[in-house]
Amino acid sequence: MTDHPSRVTWSTTKVNGEHSVEIEDDIAAEFPLTIRLDGEEFATLVCSPSHLTDLVIGFLASEGIIRSAEEIKHLSIDEDGGFAYVDLHRPQSTAKEFHSKRIIGSCCGKSRQFYFHNDARTAKTLAGGNVISAERCFELMKRMQASSVDFHLTGGFHNAALCTEDGLMEIRTDIGRHNALDKLFGYCLRQRIPTKPCVITFSGRLSSEVVLKAAKIGCPILLSKSAPTDLALRLAEDLGITCVGFIRADSMNVYTHRERIIGL
Amino acid sequence: MTDHPSRVTWSTTKVNGEHSVEIEDDIAAEFPLTIRLDGEEFATLVCSPSHLTDLVIGFLASEGIIRSAEEIKHLSIDEDGGFAYVDLHRPQSTAKEFHSKRIIGSCCGKSRQFYFHNDARTAKTLAGGNVISAERCFELMKRMQASSVDFHLTGGFHNAALCTEDGLMEIRTDIGRHNALDKLFGYCLRQRIPTKPCVITFSGRLSSEVVLKAAKIGCPILLSKSAPTDLALRLAEDLGITCVGFIRADSMNVYTHRERIIGL
Repeated sequence: MTDHPSRVTWSTTKVNGEHSVEIEDDIAAEFPLTIRLDGEEFATLVCSPSHLTDLVIGFLASEGIIRSAEEIKHLSIDEDGGFAYVDLHRPQSTAKEFHSKRIIGSCCGKSRQFYFHNDARTAKTLAGGNVISAERCFELMKRMQASSVDFHLTGGFHNAALCTEDGLMEIRTDIGRHNALDKLFGYCLRQRIPTKPCVITFSGRLSSEVVLKAAKIGCPILLSKSAPTDLALRLAEDLGITCVGFIRADSMNVYTHRERIIGL
Repeated sequence: MTDHPSRVTWSTTKVNGEHSVEIEDDIAAEFPLTIRLDGEEFATLVCSPSHLTDLVIGFLASEGIIRSAEEIKHLSIDEDGGFAYVDLHRPQSTAKEFHSKRIIGSCCGKSRQFYFHNDARTAKTLAGGNVISAERCFELMKRMQASSVDFHLTGGFHNAALCTEDGLMEIRTDIGRHNALDKLFGYCLRQRIPTKPCVITFSGRLSSEVVLKAAKIGCPILLSKSAPTDLALRLAEDLGITCVGFIRADSMNVYTHRERIIGL
Protein backbone atom coordinates (compact mmCIF):
# COMPACT_ATOMS: atom_id res chain seq x y z
CA MET A 1 0.00 0.00 0.00
CA THR A 2 1.38 3.36 -1.03
CA ASP A 3 1.57 5.99 1.64
CA HIS A 4 0.31 9.06 -0.20
CA PRO A 5 1.45 12.30 1.43
CA SER A 6 -1.00 15.19 1.70
CA ARG A 7 1.74 17.62 0.63
CA VAL A 8 4.41 17.36 -2.05
CA THR A 9 7.17 19.73 -3.14
CA TRP A 10 7.18 21.54 -6.47
CA SER A 11 9.91 23.63 -8.14
CA THR A 12 8.47 27.12 -8.07
CA THR A 13 9.64 30.53 -9.23
CA LYS A 14 8.75 33.03 -6.51
CA VAL A 15 8.45 36.55 -7.90
CA ASN A 16 8.68 39.55 -5.58
CA GLY A 17 8.44 42.86 -7.39
CA GLU A 18 11.31 42.76 -9.89
CA HIS A 19 13.16 39.90 -8.20
CA SER A 20 12.65 36.19 -8.64
CA VAL A 21 14.05 33.12 -6.93
CA GLU A 22 13.72 29.36 -7.44
CA ILE A 23 12.42 27.47 -4.43
CA GLU A 24 11.00 24.06 -3.57
CA ASP A 25 7.47 24.93 -2.50
CA ASP A 26 4.97 22.83 -0.54
CA ILE A 27 1.85 22.05 -2.57
CA ALA A 28 -1.36 20.28 -1.54
CA ALA A 29 -1.69 16.80 -3.04
CA GLU A 30 -4.86 16.03 -5.00
CA PHE A 31 -5.96 12.40 -5.00
CA PRO A 32 -8.81 10.82 -7.00
CA LEU A 33 -10.72 8.18 -5.03
CA THR A 34 -13.38 6.16 -6.83
CA ILE A 35 -15.98 4.53 -4.60
CA ARG A 36 -17.32 1.21 -5.87
CA LEU A 37 -20.53 0.42 -3.99
CA ASP A 38 -21.84 -3.16 -4.11
CA GLY A 39 -19.73 -3.80 -7.19
CA GLU A 40 -20.75 -0.69 -9.13
CA GLU A 41 -18.98 2.62 -9.66
CA PHE A 42 -20.76 5.11 -7.40
CA ALA A 43 -18.71 8.32 -7.35
CA THR A 44 -15.19 9.68 -7.73
CA LEU A 45 -14.06 12.09 -5.04
CA VAL A 46 -11.09 14.35 -5.59
CA CYS A 47 -9.55 14.68 -2.16
CA SER A 48 -6.53 14.84 0.10
CA PRO A 49 -5.23 11.30 0.76
CA SER A 50 -5.77 11.25 4.52
CA HIS A 51 -8.51 9.65 6.64
CA LEU A 52 -9.96 7.95 3.56
CA THR A 53 -12.11 5.50 5.55
CA ASP A 54 -13.70 8.43 7.40
CA LEU A 55 -14.24 10.15 4.06
CA VAL A 56 -15.98 7.19 2.43
CA ILE A 57 -18.26 6.55 5.40
CA GLY A 58 -19.07 10.24 5.83
CA PHE A 59 -19.73 10.66 2.11
CA LEU A 60 -22.09 7.66 1.96
CA ALA A 61 -23.94 8.95 5.03
CA SER A 62 -24.10 12.47 3.58
CA GLU A 63 -25.57 11.06 0.36
CA GLY A 64 -28.20 9.20 2.36
CA ILE A 65 -26.91 5.75 1.41
CA ILE A 66 -26.18 4.73 5.01
CA ARG A 67 -27.29 6.00 8.40
CA SER A 68 -24.72 4.22 10.56
CA ALA A 69 -21.29 2.70 10.07
CA GLU A 70 -22.79 -0.68 11.01
CA GLU A 71 -24.66 -0.84 7.71
CA ILE A 72 -21.32 -1.45 6.01
CA LYS A 73 -20.42 -5.13 5.63
CA HIS A 74 -17.03 -4.56 4.02
CA LEU A 75 -14.88 -1.50 3.31
CA SER A 76 -11.37 -1.60 1.89
CA ILE A 77 -9.20 1.08 0.35
CA ASP A 78 -6.78 0.44 -2.51
CA GLU A 79 -4.55 3.50 -2.22
CA ASP A 80 -2.38 2.53 -5.16
CA GLY A 81 -5.29 2.35 -7.56
CA GLY A 82 -7.36 5.04 -5.86
CA PHE A 83 -10.36 2.84 -5.14
CA ALA A 84 -12.64 2.30 -2.15
CA TYR A 85 -14.63 -0.94 -2.22
CA VAL A 86 -17.80 -0.89 -0.14
CA ASP A 87 -20.38 -3.61 0.34
CA LEU A 88 -23.50 -2.95 2.37
CA HIS A 89 -25.42 -5.51 4.42
CA ARG A 90 -28.50 -4.46 2.45
CA PRO A 91 -27.58 -3.28 -1.04
CA GLN A 92 -29.80 -0.31 -1.93
CA SER A 93 -30.16 -0.02 -5.68
CA THR A 94 -33.04 2.45 -5.37
CA ALA A 95 -31.03 4.66 -3.06
CA LYS A 96 -28.30 4.84 -5.67
CA GLU A 97 -30.75 5.63 -8.41
CA PHE A 98 -32.69 8.33 -6.61
CA HIS A 99 -30.13 9.92 -4.36
CA SER A 100 -29.53 12.89 -6.63
CA LYS A 101 -33.03 13.41 -8.00
CA ARG A 102 -34.12 16.93 -7.35
CA ILE A 103 -37.25 17.49 -5.32
CA ILE A 104 -39.38 20.36 -6.52
CA GLY A 105 -41.34 22.48 -4.07
CA SER A 106 -41.59 22.15 -0.35
CA CYS A 107 -41.86 18.62 0.91
CA CYS A 108 -41.05 18.73 4.60
CA GLY A 109 -42.22 22.07 5.87
CA LYS A 110 -43.52 25.42 4.81
CA SER A 111 -40.33 27.12 3.76
CA ARG A 112 -37.91 24.26 3.39
CA GLN A 113 -36.11 23.94 0.12
CA PHE A 114 -34.26 20.68 -0.08
CA TYR A 115 -32.63 20.05 -3.41
CA PHE A 116 -32.30 16.33 -3.26
CA HIS A 117 -34.32 13.36 -2.18
CA ASN A 118 -31.69 12.12 0.24
CA ASP A 119 -31.55 15.43 2.09
CA ALA A 120 -35.24 15.23 2.89
CA ARG A 121 -34.67 11.79 4.36
CA THR A 122 -31.52 12.43 6.36
CA ALA A 123 -31.29 16.06 7.53
CA LYS A 124 -32.48 16.39 11.12
CA THR A 125 -34.06 19.43 12.74
CA LEU A 126 -32.08 20.36 15.83
CA ALA A 127 -33.71 21.94 18.87
CA GLY A 128 -32.06 22.86 22.14
CA GLY A 129 -28.45 21.76 22.40
CA ASN A 130 -25.65 23.72 23.97
CA VAL A 131 -24.89 27.41 24.24
CA ILE A 132 -21.57 29.17 23.69
CA SER A 133 -20.03 32.58 24.39
CA ALA A 134 -18.68 34.81 21.62
CA GLU A 135 -15.27 34.68 23.28
CA ARG A 136 -15.29 30.88 23.04
CA CYS A 137 -16.19 31.09 19.33
CA PHE A 138 -13.13 33.29 18.68
CA GLU A 139 -10.96 30.93 20.72
CA LEU A 140 -12.08 27.73 18.96
CA MET A 141 -11.57 29.27 15.52
CA LYS A 142 -8.06 30.40 16.51
CA ARG A 143 -7.21 26.91 17.77
CA MET A 144 -8.42 25.22 14.60
CA GLN A 145 -6.45 27.58 12.39
CA ALA A 146 -3.34 27.19 14.55
CA SER A 147 -3.48 23.41 14.50
CA SER A 148 -3.56 23.04 10.72
CA VAL A 149 0.05 22.52 9.70
CA ASP A 150 -0.96 21.63 6.14
CA PHE A 151 -2.80 24.88 5.63
CA HIS A 152 0.04 27.02 6.89
CA LEU A 153 2.52 25.33 4.59
CA THR A 154 0.48 25.31 1.40
CA GLY A 155 -2.53 27.61 1.79
CA GLY A 156 -4.48 24.94 -0.04
CA PHE A 157 -6.55 23.16 2.59
CA HIS A 158 -9.88 23.44 4.31
CA ASN A 159 -10.41 22.40 7.91
CA ALA A 160 -13.40 21.15 9.83
CA ALA A 161 -13.17 20.44 13.56
CA LEU A 162 -15.52 18.91 16.10
CA CYS A 163 -15.23 20.88 19.34
CA THR A 164 -16.51 20.69 22.87
CA GLU A 165 -16.59 23.36 25.55
CA ASP A 166 -13.00 22.33 26.35
CA GLY A 167 -11.51 22.70 22.89
CA LEU A 168 -10.87 20.79 19.68
CA MET A 169 -11.87 17.11 19.85
CA GLU A 170 -10.99 16.10 16.29
CA ILE A 171 -9.90 17.95 13.18
CA ARG A 172 -10.10 16.86 9.53
CA THR A 173 -8.32 18.49 6.62
CA ASP A 174 -8.89 18.31 2.89
CA ILE A 175 -8.42 20.28 -0.33
CA GLY A 176 -12.23 20.13 -0.66
CA ARG A 177 -14.37 21.80 1.97
CA HIS A 178 -17.13 19.22 1.61
CA ASN A 179 -14.62 16.41 2.02
CA ALA A 180 -13.29 17.92 5.27
CA LEU A 181 -16.84 17.84 6.67
CA ASP A 182 -17.51 14.34 5.34
CA LYS A 183 -14.32 13.09 7.02
CA LEU A 184 -15.56 14.58 10.28
CA PHE A 185 -18.99 12.98 9.74
CA GLY A 186 -17.32 9.59 9.10
CA TYR A 187 -15.28 9.95 12.28
CA CYS A 188 -18.43 10.73 14.32
CA LEU A 189 -20.27 7.72 12.90
CA ARG A 190 -17.37 5.31 13.45
CA GLN A 191 -16.82 6.50 17.01
CA ARG A 192 -20.54 6.98 17.72
CA ILE A 193 -19.89 10.48 19.05
CA PRO A 194 -22.93 12.22 20.60
CA THR A 195 -22.73 15.35 18.42
CA LYS A 196 -25.57 17.40 19.84
CA PRO A 197 -23.47 18.99 22.64
CA CYS A 198 -20.72 19.79 20.12
CA VAL A 199 -19.71 22.71 17.93
CA ILE A 200 -18.30 22.51 14.40
CA THR A 201 -15.63 25.01 13.37
CA PHE A 202 -15.07 25.29 9.65
CA SER A 203 -12.75 27.25 7.39
CA GLY A 204 -14.98 27.27 4.31
CA ARG A 205 -18.01 29.15 3.17
CA LEU A 206 -21.45 28.29 4.46
CA SER A 207 -23.43 27.05 1.47
CA SER A 208 -26.67 25.09 1.72
CA GLU A 209 -24.72 21.85 1.36
CA VAL A 210 -22.54 22.72 4.34
CA VAL A 211 -25.56 23.51 6.53
CA LEU A 212 -27.23 20.26 5.45
CA LYS A 213 -24.08 18.35 6.40
CA ALA A 214 -24.07 19.95 9.87
CA ALA A 215 -27.74 18.93 10.25
CA LYS A 216 -26.95 15.37 9.17
CA ILE A 217 -23.99 15.21 11.56
CA GLY A 218 -26.43 16.43 14.21
CA CYS A 219 -24.43 19.40 15.43
CA PRO A 220 -26.46 22.57 16.13
CA ILE A 221 -23.66 25.20 16.19
CA LEU A 222 -21.70 25.92 13.01
CA LEU A 223 -18.84 28.43 13.19
CA SER A 224 -17.08 29.59 10.03
CA LYS A 225 -14.43 32.12 9.17
CA SER A 226 -16.07 32.72 5.78
CA ALA A 227 -19.27 34.06 4.19
CA PRO A 228 -22.70 32.39 4.07
CA THR A 229 -25.30 32.20 1.27
CA ASP A 230 -28.95 33.14 1.71
CA LEU A 231 -30.20 29.61 1.06
CA ALA A 232 -27.78 28.22 3.67
CA LEU A 233 -29.21 30.66 6.23
CA ARG A 234 -32.82 29.89 5.34
CA LEU A 235 -32.10 26.18 5.76
CA ALA A 236 -30.29 26.85 9.03
CA GLU A 237 -33.31 28.80 10.35
CA ASP A 238 -35.56 25.85 9.53
CA LEU A 239 -33.22 23.13 10.73
CA GLY A 240 -32.49 24.86 14.05
CA ILE A 241 -28.80 25.51 13.38
CA THR A 242 -26.87 28.48 14.76
CA CYS A 243 -24.74 29.87 11.92
CA VAL A 244 -21.86 32.21 12.67
CA GLY A 245 -19.64 33.55 9.87
CA PHE A 246 -16.64 35.81 9.30
CA ILE A 247 -14.99 34.84 12.60
CA ARG A 248 -11.77 36.89 12.63
CA ALA A 249 -9.74 37.57 15.78
CA ASP A 250 -12.48 39.03 18.02
CA SER A 251 -15.28 39.79 15.60
CA MET A 252 -18.00 37.67 14.00
CA ASN A 253 -21.45 37.74 12.40
CA VAL A 254 -24.30 35.74 13.94
CA TYR A 255 -26.95 34.93 11.34
CA THR A 256 -29.37 32.37 12.74
CA HIS A 257 -30.62 30.96 16.07
CA ARG A 258 -28.65 33.50 18.09
CA GLU A 259 -30.31 32.16 21.27
CA ARG A 260 -27.36 29.75 21.49
CA ILE A 261 -24.83 32.61 21.69
CA ILE A 262 -24.62 33.69 25.33
CA GLY A 263 -25.50 37.36 25.88
CA LEU A 264 -27.21 37.98 22.54
CA MET B 1 -39.93 35.90 -15.12
CA THR B 2 -38.54 36.61 -11.68
CA ASP B 3 -35.49 38.81 -11.52
CA HIS B 4 -33.35 36.99 -8.99
CA PRO B 5 -30.77 39.26 -7.35
CA SER B 6 -27.27 37.93 -6.72
CA ARG B 7 -27.29 39.53 -3.26
CA VAL B 8 -29.99 39.74 -0.59
CA THR B 9 -30.05 41.36 2.84
CA TRP B 10 -30.18 39.39 6.08
CA SER B 11 -30.70 40.57 9.68
CA THR B 12 -27.34 39.91 11.27
CA THR B 13 -25.87 40.39 14.72
CA LYS B 14 -22.37 41.79 14.30
CA VAL B 15 -20.19 41.03 17.32
CA ASN B 16 -17.04 43.06 17.97
CA GLY B 17 -15.25 42.02 21.11
CA GLU B 18 -17.85 42.51 23.85
CA HIS B 19 -20.15 44.71 21.77
CA SER B 20 -22.87 43.64 19.39
CA VAL B 21 -25.10 45.48 16.97
CA GLU B 22 -27.98 44.50 14.68
CA ILE B 23 -27.42 45.28 11.03
CA GLU B 24 -28.89 44.44 7.63
CA ASP B 25 -26.02 42.58 5.97
CA ASP B 26 -25.49 41.77 2.29
CA ILE B 27 -25.45 38.01 1.64
CA ALA B 28 -24.73 36.09 -1.55
CA ALA B 29 -27.82 34.47 -3.07
CA GLU B 30 -27.68 30.74 -3.79
CA PHE B 31 -29.86 29.52 -6.65
CA PRO B 32 -30.52 25.92 -7.73
CA LEU B 33 -30.69 25.49 -11.52
CA THR B 34 -31.69 22.10 -12.91
CA ILE B 35 -30.64 21.44 -16.49
CA ARG B 36 -33.01 19.28 -18.49
CA LEU B 37 -31.20 17.99 -21.56
CA ASP B 38 -33.28 16.55 -24.42
CA GLY B 39 -36.16 16.07 -22.00
CA GLU B 40 -34.20 14.36 -19.24
CA GLU B 41 -32.82 15.69 -15.95
CA PHE B 42 -29.09 16.07 -16.50
CA ALA B 43 -27.67 18.01 -13.52
CA THR B 44 -28.56 20.55 -10.84
CA LEU B 45 -26.12 23.40 -10.41
CA VAL B 46 -26.13 25.51 -7.28
CA CYS B 47 -25.12 28.93 -8.49
CA SER B 48 -25.50 32.70 -8.43
CA PRO B 49 -28.49 33.71 -10.56
CA SER B 50 -26.61 35.76 -13.15
CA HIS B 51 -25.50 34.95 -16.71
CA LEU B 52 -27.44 31.66 -16.59
CA THR B 53 -27.32 31.09 -20.36
CA ASP B 54 -23.52 31.42 -20.29
CA LEU B 55 -23.45 29.03 -17.35
CA VAL B 56 -25.53 26.34 -19.05
CA ILE B 57 -23.55 26.50 -22.32
CA GLY B 58 -20.19 26.55 -20.50
CA PHE B 59 -21.21 23.68 -18.25
CA LEU B 60 -22.35 21.49 -21.14
CA ALA B 61 -19.11 22.24 -23.01
CA SER B 62 -17.05 21.55 -19.88
CA GLU B 63 -18.82 18.22 -19.49
CA GLY B 64 -18.02 17.32 -23.09
CA ILE B 65 -21.67 17.31 -24.19
CA ILE B 66 -21.19 20.09 -26.76
CA ARG B 67 -18.19 21.64 -28.47
CA SER B 68 -19.84 24.76 -29.83
CA ALA B 69 -22.90 26.87 -29.03
CA GLU B 70 -24.25 26.01 -32.50
CA GLU B 71 -24.92 22.41 -31.40
CA ILE B 72 -27.77 23.73 -29.27
CA LYS B 73 -31.14 23.76 -31.05
CA HIS B 74 -33.09 25.32 -28.20
CA LEU B 75 -32.18 26.80 -24.80
CA SER B 76 -34.62 28.49 -22.46
CA ILE B 77 -34.36 29.39 -18.79
CA ASP B 78 -37.31 29.28 -16.40
CA GLU B 79 -35.98 31.44 -13.58
CA ASP B 80 -39.10 31.05 -11.44
CA GLY B 81 -38.86 27.27 -11.38
CA GLY B 82 -35.06 27.13 -11.58
CA PHE B 83 -34.92 25.12 -14.80
CA ALA B 84 -32.87 25.31 -17.98
CA TYR B 85 -34.34 23.43 -20.94
CA VAL B 86 -31.82 22.42 -23.58
CA ASP B 87 -32.36 20.51 -26.81
CA LEU B 88 -29.43 19.56 -29.00
CA HIS B 89 -29.48 19.20 -32.77
CA ARG B 90 -28.07 15.72 -32.24
CA PRO B 91 -29.17 14.24 -28.93
CA GLN B 92 -26.26 12.30 -27.41
CA SER B 93 -27.54 9.63 -25.11
CA THR B 94 -24.12 7.93 -24.94
CA ALA B 95 -22.43 11.18 -24.00
CA LYS B 96 -24.80 11.57 -21.09
CA GLU B 97 -24.25 8.02 -19.96
CA PHE B 98 -20.46 8.03 -20.14
CA HIS B 99 -19.54 11.59 -19.38
CA SER B 100 -18.58 10.90 -15.78
CA LYS B 101 -17.07 7.43 -16.12
CA ARG B 102 -13.60 7.42 -14.73
CA ILE B 103 -10.73 6.45 -16.98
CA ILE B 104 -8.08 4.38 -15.28
CA GLY B 105 -4.44 4.77 -16.21
CA SER B 106 -2.92 7.03 -18.81
CA CYS B 107 -4.83 7.21 -22.04
CA CYS B 108 -3.54 10.26 -23.83
CA GLY B 109 0.10 10.53 -22.93
CA LYS B 110 2.75 9.20 -20.65
CA SER B 111 1.98 11.08 -17.49
CA ARG B 112 -1.52 12.34 -18.11
CA GLN B 113 -4.13 11.50 -15.57
CA PHE B 114 -7.55 12.44 -16.77
CA TYR B 115 -10.30 11.42 -14.44
CA PHE B 116 -13.17 11.39 -16.80
CA HIS B 117 -13.93 10.25 -20.29
CA ASN B 118 -15.09 13.67 -21.43
CA ASP B 119 -11.85 15.35 -20.32
CA ALA B 120 -9.82 13.08 -22.56
CA ARG B 121 -12.00 14.11 -25.49
CA THR B 122 -12.20 17.85 -24.91
CA ALA B 123 -9.08 19.17 -23.15
CA LYS B 124 -6.65 20.66 -25.66
CA THR B 125 -2.89 20.85 -25.35
CA LEU B 126 -1.80 24.45 -25.76
CA ALA B 127 1.53 25.40 -27.30
CA GLY B 128 2.85 28.89 -27.99
CA GLY B 129 0.35 31.63 -27.29
CA ASN B 130 1.13 34.96 -25.72
CA VAL B 131 3.64 36.11 -23.15
CA ILE B 132 3.07 38.42 -20.19
CA SER B 133 5.17 40.40 -17.70
CA ALA B 134 4.93 39.83 -13.94
CA GLU B 135 3.88 43.46 -13.54
CA ARG B 136 0.96 42.87 -15.90
CA CYS B 137 -0.08 39.79 -13.86
CA PHE B 138 -0.24 41.91 -10.68
CA GLU B 139 -2.18 44.61 -12.52
CA LEU B 140 -4.79 42.26 -14.05
CA MET B 141 -5.43 40.57 -10.70
CA LYS B 142 -5.87 43.96 -9.02
CA ARG B 143 -8.35 45.05 -11.69
CA MET B 144 -10.40 41.88 -11.39
CA GLN B 145 -10.60 42.19 -7.62
CA ALA B 146 -11.46 45.88 -7.82
CA SER B 147 -14.27 45.34 -10.33
CA SER B 148 -16.16 42.76 -8.27
CA VAL B 149 -18.80 44.75 -6.40
CA ASP B 150 -20.54 41.57 -5.23
CA PHE B 151 -17.41 40.22 -3.59
CA HIS B 152 -16.67 43.41 -1.71
CA LEU B 153 -20.17 43.58 -0.30
CA THR B 154 -20.59 39.95 0.74
CA GLY B 155 -17.20 38.19 0.67
CA GLY B 156 -19.02 35.23 -0.81
CA PHE B 157 -18.16 35.22 -4.52
CA HIS B 158 -15.54 33.88 -6.88
CA ASN B 159 -14.48 35.72 -9.99
CA ALA B 160 -13.09 34.61 -13.32
CA ALA B 161 -12.09 37.11 -15.98
CA LEU B 162 -10.94 36.88 -19.57
CA CYS B 163 -8.17 39.41 -20.13
CA THR B 164 -6.12 40.76 -22.99
CA GLU B 165 -2.91 42.75 -22.92
CA ASP B 166 -5.10 45.86 -22.50
CA GLY B 167 -7.10 44.72 -19.49
CA LEU B 168 -10.25 42.88 -18.48
CA MET B 169 -12.41 41.86 -21.43
CA GLU B 170 -15.19 40.09 -19.53
CA ILE B 171 -15.72 39.05 -15.90
CA ARG B 172 -18.06 36.41 -14.48
CA THR B 173 -19.00 36.01 -10.84
CA ASP B 174 -20.51 33.10 -8.92
CA ILE B 175 -20.68 31.58 -5.43
CA GLY B 176 -19.05 28.50 -7.02
CA ARG B 177 -15.58 28.81 -8.49
CA HIS B 178 -16.32 26.22 -11.19
CA ASN B 179 -19.48 28.07 -12.17
CA ALA B 180 -17.57 31.33 -12.57
CA LEU B 181 -15.25 29.61 -15.06
CA ASP B 182 -18.12 27.84 -16.84
CA LYS B 183 -19.90 31.20 -17.26
CA LEU B 184 -16.73 32.57 -18.84
CA PHE B 185 -16.49 29.48 -21.07
CA GLY B 186 -20.10 29.93 -22.15
CA TYR B 187 -19.44 33.58 -22.97
CA CYS B 188 -16.39 32.64 -25.11
CA LEU B 189 -18.38 30.02 -27.03
CA ARG B 190 -21.36 32.29 -27.64
CA GLN B 191 -19.17 35.17 -28.81
CA ARG B 192 -16.65 32.89 -30.60
CA ILE B 193 -13.78 34.63 -28.82
CA PRO B 194 -10.30 33.55 -29.97
CA THR B 195 -9.02 32.62 -26.50
CA LYS B 196 -5.43 31.65 -27.28
CA PRO B 197 -4.06 35.22 -27.05
CA CYS B 198 -5.94 35.71 -23.75
CA VAL B 199 -5.22 35.34 -20.05
CA ILE B 200 -7.63 34.07 -17.40
CA THR B 201 -7.54 35.67 -13.94
CA PHE B 202 -9.24 33.66 -11.24
CA SER B 203 -9.93 34.14 -7.53
CA GLY B 204 -10.17 30.46 -6.62
CA ARG B 205 -7.76 27.64 -6.03
CA LEU B 206 -6.13 25.82 -8.90
CA SER B 207 -7.40 22.25 -8.75
CA SER B 208 -7.16 19.78 -11.62
CA GLU B 209 -10.71 20.65 -12.65
CA VAL B 210 -9.82 24.32 -12.95
CA VAL B 211 -6.76 23.58 -15.12
CA LEU B 212 -8.86 21.27 -17.32
CA LYS B 213 -11.41 24.03 -17.75
CA ALA B 214 -8.69 26.48 -18.84
CA ALA B 215 -7.49 23.89 -21.37
CA LYS B 216 -11.01 23.38 -22.68
CA ILE B 217 -11.53 27.15 -22.94
CA GLY B 218 -8.23 27.17 -24.83
CA CYS B 219 -6.47 29.81 -22.77
CA PRO B 220 -2.78 29.09 -22.02
CA ILE B 221 -2.17 31.50 -19.11
CA LEU B 222 -4.03 30.98 -15.82
CA LEU B 223 -3.48 33.50 -13.01
CA SER B 224 -4.88 32.88 -9.53
CA LYS B 225 -4.68 34.58 -6.17
CA SER B 226 -4.90 31.19 -4.43
CA ALA B 227 -3.02 27.90 -3.99
CA PRO B 228 -2.62 25.07 -6.52
CA THR B 229 -2.71 21.28 -6.09
CA ASP B 230 -0.02 18.93 -7.36
CA LEU B 231 -2.34 17.18 -9.82
CA ALA B 232 -3.40 20.55 -11.24
CA LEU B 233 0.25 21.42 -11.86
CA ARG B 234 1.06 18.04 -13.42
CA LEU B 235 -1.88 18.45 -15.79
CA ALA B 236 -0.83 22.03 -16.55
CA GLU B 237 2.70 20.83 -17.42
CA ASP B 238 1.24 18.29 -19.83
CA LEU B 239 -1.41 20.54 -21.33
CA GLY B 240 0.98 23.44 -21.90
CA ILE B 241 -0.65 25.83 -19.45
CA THR B 242 1.23 28.52 -17.49
CA CYS B 243 -0.04 28.40 -13.90
CA VAL B 244 0.62 31.30 -11.55
CA GLY B 245 -0.72 31.27 -7.99
CA PHE B 246 -0.77 33.42 -4.85
CA ILE B 247 -0.85 36.69 -6.77
CA ARG B 248 -0.90 39.36 -4.03
CA ALA B 249 0.01 43.00 -4.63
CA ASP B 250 3.46 42.57 -6.23
CA SER B 251 4.33 38.96 -5.49
CA MET B 252 3.37 35.66 -7.11
CA ASN B 253 4.41 32.04 -7.61
CA VAL B 254 5.03 30.69 -11.11
CA TYR B 255 4.58 26.92 -11.22
CA THR B 256 4.48 25.73 -14.83
CA HIS B 257 5.52 26.85 -18.34
CA ARG B 258 7.32 29.91 -17.05
CA GLU B 259 8.56 30.62 -20.61
CA ARG B 260 5.40 32.70 -21.03
CA ILE B 261 6.37 35.04 -18.16
CA ILE B 262 8.70 37.71 -19.58
CA GLY B 263 12.10 37.78 -17.91
CA LEU B 264 11.90 34.35 -16.17
